Amino acid sequence: MKAKAEPRRRRSPKGESRRQEILDAATKLFSHGGFHTASLADIADAVGLTQAGLLHYFPSKAELLLAVLRQREERVLVDETADAANKGIAYAEAFVETLRRNEKNPVMVQLFAILSHEAIFTDHPAHPWFRERYAAVVIKATDQLAATIDETKLPPGTTVESIARLMIAAADGLRLQWLLDPKALERPKVMNEFFALLAPYIKKPD
Amino acid sequence: MKAKAEPRRRRSPKGESRRQEILDAATKLFSHGGFHTASLADIADAVGLTQAGLLHYFPSKAELLLAVLRQREERVLVDETADAANKGIAYAEAFVETLRRNEKNPVMVQLFAILSHEAIFTDHPAHPWFRERYAAVVIKATDQLAATIDETKLPPGTTVESIARLMIAAADGLRLQWLLDPKALERPKVMNEFFALLAPYIKKPD
Repeated sequence: MKAKAEPRRRRSPKGESRRQEILDAATKLFSHGGFHTASLADIADAVGLTQAGLLHYFPSKAELLLAVLRQREERVLVDETADAANKGIAYAEAFVETLRRNEKNPVMVQLFAILSHEAIFTDHPAHPWFRERYAAVVIKATDQLAATIDETKLPPGTTVESIARLMIAAADGLRLQWLLDPKALERPKVMNEFFALLAPYIKKPD
Repeated sequence: MKAKAEPRRRRSPKGESRRQEILDAATKLFSHGGFHTASLADIADAVGLTQAGLLHYFPSKAELLLAVLRQREERVLVDETADAANKGIAYAEAFVETLRRNEKNPVMVQLFAILSHEAIFTDHPAHPWFRERYAAVVIKATDQLAATIDETKLPPGTTVESIARLMIAAADGLRLQWLLDPKALERPKVMNEFFALLAPYIKKPD
């Protein structure tokens, strides 16, 4: 009956909440030990399931990892869409706002830092996901920055795509500095300075 | 006899070359699996030693890791010192030159990428080394950039230290983009664009 009354909902509310519990436990364990060290047995233990019980929700450890990454990415997207009224220069503010929001969830920041680096090897289950994710993020950022930057003002040989790559790289690299020594810097503040330094290249308002 | 004739040399040439073999094997294994996955047994195997034999050269896996990191850092320093005639704006060129040189040794680039991220946790044996290394690199870079940048031209609230942090962060973040997808970008080229974008803030020659 219920399945017919709610045809789009493929999972029961109880199953859904169990699934989320597993994702939260996996996030915590992957964010510390990485994919290889965190075992399915540990994740199952953390939510009081057997390994067989856990595999009922996610068919493999690799699938569980990808579900964790996808969920994190969707949440960031929802937050960014909420900020989407901002256009032009406000893109920089929205970008910094995302960093500020992420800081409240350091486990997720760690997860991304650790896993993106583990995934540089082509045999890592998240390698294609991260490679494609970065390619997509670079395209999106290039597009957003192109609306703000006056290309005629850029130094010869400098492209908007490179600025997008530098922006993403700066955020990732500052993340490492912050994770190694949280008192050494405020990532959103330093990132704001990156955008401030771009001022000579910003389009004048019409 | 030999020990007296060469009082400064504490290790025999044969021991020294064995030690280097171990460091090279450890670099390779740590750069793939990280510190936790690579076992002393694997490293000993790779150089045809027993674990006990290997521990004769390095008292622990943690000490071996630190020796790998220190040696890499010393080599970079030797290369940079060779470039030391360069001052002022040439600092940027020397920085990019180091990245270009490192690309020829991708295993070492991977090692640093993987281990610096593993080491964000305070219980990692290389945590203090990386935290102190980054603090030192930021101080050095700030010092070098201060000789080049005209602080009076910087946007309000922007500091030379932040530019140093952004420079280091950009190099680290571009490294991740390059390791995930080597064809997507040339790290030295994009890093050069970072320096080109700083042109409005560079001191005029006297």
